[in-house]
Amino acid sequence: MALNKDRRIGRHAILLLLSDNPTEQLAKLEQSNWKGCLGKVGSMDAQKIVAAIETAAKKNEIVKTDVYRESHALYHAIIEALHGVTRGQVQLGSVLRTVGLSFAVLRGNPYDNEQEGDWIAVSLYGTIGAPVKGSEHETIGLGINHI
Amino acid sequence: MALNKDRRIGRHAILLLLSDNPTEQLAKLEQSNWKGCLGKVGSMDAQKIVAAIETAAKKNEIVKTDVYRESHALYHAIIEALHGVTRGQVQLGSVLRTVGLSFAVLRGNPYDNEQEGDWIAVSLYGTIGAPVKGSEHETIGLGINHI
Amino acid sequence: MALNKDRRIGRHAILLLLSDNPTEQLAKLEQSNWKGCLGKVGSMDAQKIVAAIETAAKKNEIVKTDVYRESHALYHAIIEALHGVTRGQVQLGSVLRTVGLSFAVLRGNPYDNEQEGDWIAVSLYGTIGAPVKGSEHETIGLGINHI
Amino acid sequence: MALNKDRRIGRHAILLLLSDNPTEQLAKLEQSNWKGCLGKVGSMDAQKIVAAIETAAKKNEIVKTDVYRESHALYHAIIEALHGVTRGQVQLGSVLRTVGLSFAVLRGNPYDNEQEGDWIAVSLYGTIGAPVKGSEHETIGLGINHI
Amino acid sequence: MALNKDRRIGRHAILLLLSDNPTEQLAKLEQSNWKGCLGKVGSMDAQKIVAAIETAAKKNEIVKTDVYRESHALYHAIIEALHGVTRGQVQLGSVLRTVGLSFAVLRGNPYDNEQEGDWIAVSLYGTIGAPVKGSEHETIGLGINHI
Amino acid sequence: MALNKDRRIGRHAILLLLSDNPTEQLAKLEQSNWKGCLGKVGSMDAQKIVAAIETAAKKNEIVKTDVYRESHALYHAIIEALHGVTRGQVQLGSVLRTVGLSFAVLRGNPYDNEQEGDWIAVSLYGTIGAPVKGSEHETIGLGINHI
Ligand SMILES: [Mg+2]
Ligand SMILES: [Mg+2]
Ligand SMILES: [Mg+2]
Ligand SMILES: [Mg+2]
Ligand SMILES: [Mg+2]
Ligand SMILES: [Mg+2]
Repeated sequence: MALNKDRRIGRHAILLLLSDNPTEQLAKLEQSNWKGCLGKVGSMDAQKIVAAIETAAKKNEIVKTDVYRESHALYHAIIEALHGVTRGQVQLGSVLRTVGLSFAVLRGNPYDNEQEGDWIAVSLYGTIGAPVKGSEHETIGLGINHI
Repeated sequence: MALNKDRRIGRHAILLLLSDNPTEQLAKLEQSNWKGCLGKVGSMDAQKIVAAIETAAKKNEIVKTDVYRESHALYHAIIEALHGVTRGQVQLGSVLRTVGLSFAVLRGNPYDNEQEGDWIAVSLYGTIGAPVKGSEHETIGLGINHI
Repeated sequence: MALNKDRRIGRHAILLLLSDNPTEQLAKLEQSNWKGCLGKVGSMDAQKIVAAIETAAKKNEIVKTDVYRESHALYHAIIEALHGVTRGQVQLGSVLRTVGLSFAVLRGNPYDNEQEGDWIAVSLYGTIGAPVKGSEHETIGLGINHI
Repeated sequence: MALNKDRRIGRHAILLLLSDNPTEQLAKLEQSNWKGCLGKVGSMDAQKIVAAIETAAKKNEIVKTDVYRESHALYHAIIEALHGVTRGQVQLGSVLRTVGLSFAVLRGNPYDNEQEGDWIAVSLYGTIGAPVKGSEHETIGLGINHI
Repeated sequence: MALNKDRRIGRHAILLLLSDNPTEQLAKLEQSNWKGCLGKVGSMDAQKIVAAIETAAKKNEIVKTDVYRESHALYHAIIEALHGVTRGQVQLGSVLRTVGLSFAVLRGNPYDNEQEGDWIAVSLYGTIGAPVKGSEHETIGLGINHI
Repeated sequence: MALNKDRRIGRHAILLLLSDNPTEQLAKLEQSNWKGCLGKVGSMDAQKIVAAIETAAKKNEIVKTDVYRESHALYHAIIEALHGVTRGQVQLGSVLRTVGLSFAVLRGNPYDNEQEGDWIAVSLYGTIGAPVKGSEHETIGLGINHI
């Protein structure tokens, strides 16, 4: 059941965000049987972060639109990633803060065992802070789920 | 007050953990006026994670041992990083899960403005799961504080 | 101080929601010295869930309108029930999810000892999920308080 | 993607716990293509609750022992159910309270669409309170996950 | 239903802790129909904080020992007060911190309306920090409940 | 590193709020090298509480407007104080409750050691409850941070 060293899905999902060439990097991953997508979203409204990621993942066919179990897996991965970003209460504007995030969604099997099937990783990286330019620091989040 | 693109402390702290040569990477950062340290800790006991990071940061003189404001800054950065790792309740063994983590602590000024002074980043990356070999997935956390 | 097996207020409150004839079931309970009411509410707005239950409980005279201690007891029972429904953050629309719930409020003494006086149970049962028909699973919550 | 009215997995899982003949009730469910198991556990230690449910589910072959994705699905369903039981902090002894719970685990497809595959429900019902006989009230929790 | 300006129970409970003569101050309150008690407790174990307050309140007959509704009211007031002290996760030793607290429990009717009956306030004041002398800052908490 | 008994910043910040002459009291503190300000805010919107305190602190020059590390220290102190006020979820209107608060911000060094530099305390005291006059009880919160 061990994680395969070369297929650590979370590590890949985060490196995509920190890369200087995320699109190129994603193309390489797609050649190795990963599905993935990238995007950016800034908002004081956590709901818009969730929506942006769900929309990107569906549009890029990372998750099947008409099967709820896939949306369910993605949703919980997004919320887990938001815990890392918000560190306490999954709230933004309601506690007067805003985020500017890039995100990646990656899908594939990170384990040696084929029976583990597909997993999904949602990574978030960017800044969080007051709604004032520059009054912000970095933040990261990662959610991982079986799908 | 903007973050300096080359001095994004959180990004550096995470890349250290995901690097193939973290020690070498840290040496480079130290040449550019960052202070930092690296370590590993595995436990079902969140308290031991906190202690391992605090001990490493003090031993490597990232924070001053005899000034509480420095320990205070580090402590809150650690707890924020643990939120990303635990995603909900900052609990490990008490909800029957364990972690195997590598960590980095980095200190320096990530902003253009010198007045922003020093900040501290605590990054965590590794696995979380049941206390059974292989029953685990990846996890990440980042805490950032002024110091 | 033991709970009376036949007067388990929480069990009754949940069975009301899962019953095929909740109104009939409630009528039986009212013959055995329970006060209660039933209702339905669907919303992305947790505030509306709270308001719907409070309004029903006051209109049906389960709690006295002009005594704050009764509203206070009810309020905390509602919030506790919402914890079961939301499982982590008591948030709905702000994390892009919605609920369709039936609810019951029940009041009476579930203990053998008369001195225990009245207690109140708030039960919630229904679905939670994305604001898309069918993209949802079941959810339940129970809050109990002395009143 | 709608939930099938007769196959509401959460409702079944809770009714099992509130039934006067849970074993008989479970036998009926097993005839309709559900897999399930029942158990009891009392503890001040949340970890023991998690372990008791995981052990029962594995012993009764509700989840496959050697596939992590199945344990992962179960684990998160258990933790979600514990949120309903604890209503705020997933802690028992550390805040001086104890639980006496019966639990059920149920597995099957609650949706009309076959593609939705298997889902798992963990239900908890019992009492929570001070570690003093009778100083307790009822509590319930339900966690649902795709598996 | 308004709070009576002279009988603000929370304000009294906190002033007791910040007073130079808490015992004398409490004696005055007891002459005005309040019941109350004072104590001190230091621990890395949240459970011991809860136990110390419960024991003091029972020993001083602020709550009736043999009526669960009174213990229940007190318990929730204690936990609410601990939220102010811990500010996020109601955890001490498990996140490597300790507290040194004085506490007060006060009982009476803070409202103009006699029907509001008795309410209970639990106040906590002291220090929280690392288990190292001096590595600590102040902390306060207040829980209020109808009883 | 010990706290100086006469300079307990949290105690001073709370006593300001409970004082009959807060302005006079603050003037005395300002003569002893403390900086501080006072204000009042009532809202169902946690965001407005945060904004009111930040605005007052900046207008009164307790924190420097153009240095993010100062805003960052203040922000986290405010959020910590709100934990005491809300006791569980840092939410007001979204769970149908409102607050009427007075607040104080105090800045100075509470420790014997000069190297500890400045710390900031945010104290909140007032009422929390339903958006109905009189349906409310008291609440308090204190957040402390190095600045
Ligand atoms: Mg997981
Ligand atoms: Mg911050
Ligand atoms: Mg209770
Ligand atoms: Mg779900
Ligand atoms: Mg209350
Ligand atoms: Mg602190």
